[in-house]
Amino acid sequence: MNVDGKPYQSIWVDASNPEVIRYINQLLLPFELRVEAMETSEDALEAIRTMKVRGAPLIGVTGAFGIYLACLEAKSHGSGNEYLEERAELLRSARPTAVNLAWAVDRMMEHISGTGDSHDRTWIALEEAVAMMEQERESCLRIGQHGLGLIREIWKQKKGDSADDPRINILTHCNAGWLACIDYGTATAPIYLAHDEGIPVHVWVDETRPRNQGARLTAWELARHGVPHTVVVDNAGGHLMQHGKVDMVIVGSDRTTRTGDVANKIGTYLKALAANDNEIPFYVALPSSSIDFGIRSGIEEIRIEERDTGEVSKMEGVSDGEIREVDIIPAGSPISNYGFDVTPSRLVTGLITERGICGANEKDILKLFPEH
Amino acid sequence: MNVDGKPYQSIWVDASNPEVIRYINQLLLPFELRVEAMETSEDALEAIRTMKVRGAPLIGVTGAFGIYLACLEAKSHGSGNEYLEERAELLRSARPTAVNLAWAVDRMMEHISGTGDSHDRTWIALEEAVAMMEQERESCLRIGQHGLGLIREIWKQKKGDSADDPRINILTHCNAGWLACIDYGTATAPIYLAHDEGIPVHVWVDETRPRNQGARLTAWELARHGVPHTVVVDNAGGHLMQHGKVDMVIVGSDRTTRTGDVANKIGTYLKALAANDNEIPFYVALPSSSIDFGIRSGIEEIRIEERDTGEVSKMEGVSDGEIREVDIIPAGSPISNYGFDVTPSRLVTGLITERGICGANEKDILKLFPEH
Repeated sequence: MNVDGKPYQSIWVDASNPEVIRYINQLLLPFELRVEAMETSEDALEAIRTMKVRGAPLIGVTGAFGIYLACLEAKSHGSGNEYLEERAELLRSARPTAVNLAWAVDRMMEHISGTGDSHDRTWIALEEAVAMMEQERESCLRIGQHGLGLIREIWKQKKGDSADDPRINILTHCNAGWLACIDYGTATAPIYLAHDEGIPVHVWVDETRPRNQGARLTAWELARHGVPHTVVVDNAGGHLMQHGKVDMVIVGSDRTTRTGDVANKIGTYLKALAANDNEIPFYVALPSSSIDFGIRSGIEEIRIEERDTGEVSKMEGVSDGEIREVDIIPAGSPISNYGFDVTPSRLVTGLITERGICGANEKDILKLFPEH
Repeated sequence: MNVDGKPYQSIWVDASNPEVIRYINQLLLPFELRVEAMETSEDALEAIRTMKVRGAPLIGVTGAFGIYLACLEAKSHGSGNEYLEERAELLRSARPTAVNLAWAVDRMMEHISGTGDSHDRTWIALEEAVAMMEQERESCLRIGQHGLGLIREIWKQKKGDSADDPRINILTHCNAGWLACIDYGTATAPIYLAHDEGIPVHVWVDETRPRNQGARLTAWELARHGVPHTVVVDNAGGHLMQHGKVDMVIVGSDRTTRTGDVANKIGTYLKALAANDNEIPFYVALPSSSIDFGIRSGIEEIRIEERDTGEVSKMEGVSDGEIREVDIIPAGSPISNYGFDVTPSRLVTGLITERGICGANEKDILKLFPEH
């Protein structure tokens, strides 16, 4: 999408040197837009682990480029097979909740497995990683087109009801925007397309503690592209919904089960409960690469990452023009930091995928994805 | 309660000079424990407005001391009646959501209305403000005793189930602790009494954005008194409840309707939904002074304060040993900041009051408070 008029992606191959992958270091946003270089598989691993890149689709593509960069490095490790296996294993486990990281790495490894020649292998790996990147981009665009239909419908109905608020209000949690993907985003794709088509969209942006991806990234994205929005603390959504200030909710997903349970950023479940209590449609936008067809129960089978407590106890911001970190929790108070929660399928109105919209249940999901 | 072994209250009359009211400036906690002096009614007003004092019972008592200080000042304003009315009006409206601020100010004004002599009036006002302070303290102790019964019961049952976790886990939101009251607190009173009695209580402390009263005040209180606890972001409660990590929820209330709807810090409603979805008892502890018997529907009749957006966009913390404020929201993103939400009575298991525990419905409430 646009950053003040100039189109961007979250990751791309350097136009003049294909051995360098460029990406936006998302840890510095919204304070600074810095493009960094990924030149080794270790760079890719570090970018994933430290969350310089985040969001299921982007993590997957970064993993794929990590394998490509490992192929470049493998040339100096004999056949390189053992080295590649080692790097693949590290990349796979860099973020346990993100199912399509393992999926992307496996797909790359399978794709290059038949090729002994290290030059050919590298070339094939680059091609495949780029194909995956393009596929994710395309997939988000399609999600956007399908979701746009929903927004049009809800907007048409709202206008018909001659509502006082001449906007359609959409609440989103965390950042399932273009920064999390390659372009368009998942949850934001329908929003960008609706905005570009002239529908008066207004977005409630959940701050999304502890890492504030909503306030830091979603708000930044929407502002840069010119989409009207308002930042609220995570606590506010229930109140907004009780008072008719939310027409629909769209969130992303890090991992969805074959039965439609949705693992997403911690706090998503609370918003789903509030939407359900106030009869507000709650949609999850996701590329099918993040559906884990191997599991059924989200609450029992998805292991929830416990992350560094520093994410909770420290807060980054700007003071006197400098990025600074302050300690916000009294020393001596223990902290716990679960990264995700699971929204049971019964609270999900529908899944917006690249193939269309379906109910959050096994039957409807398999109708769209019969190959599983 | 204790601060590292020494007993404290949130507000008190200076032992050597009754024209000075002492209180803890809660804006500096948890970074610094500073006791400040309130010497004029303007000091009282400013302390309420800027939230140096906060929490329904403490705000009420501060309002009462504000009238006492105004009586001291009134001596230089003729009969002083007009001056007193003016100060009372300002104090009443310093925080619109806190019903017992207006209640406390009205009670003071009524109490002194028959007294023309300004010396007598001042003396009577001091006596009455102190009586109200003692009454709030006593009221919290009783809330604690009634709530302790509940904790004992839940703990007995949990032990009987031979649970893996040898603690009783209580989640609370915001600060309804002794800092919000005079002593004991409301939501925390049963917790302190259970802890002091040797029941192995562990408290999940919601951070409570935007002002972080949970992380800053509740965690500080519990740590200083020695109660085991863990700070979590507001988003985490649903996940904890889904996984059996919460045995009960106890929160406070800023205002409760005669039908049992509860206005409390923004985000309380979301926790009530999660407790309900996971069949976890959700209790609200409150002194009856915060019940507004004049209203029935919390959602329709309670006006929710919209507060300064700087509370959301700026975060205070410590860096290099100094208290600093950093900007955490990208410039140019609009913000909205609702202070409270309403939890409908249907989500409330019971109200813990100074007279006992009752269901969150008009019939049960009036059985405990038949005078209304």
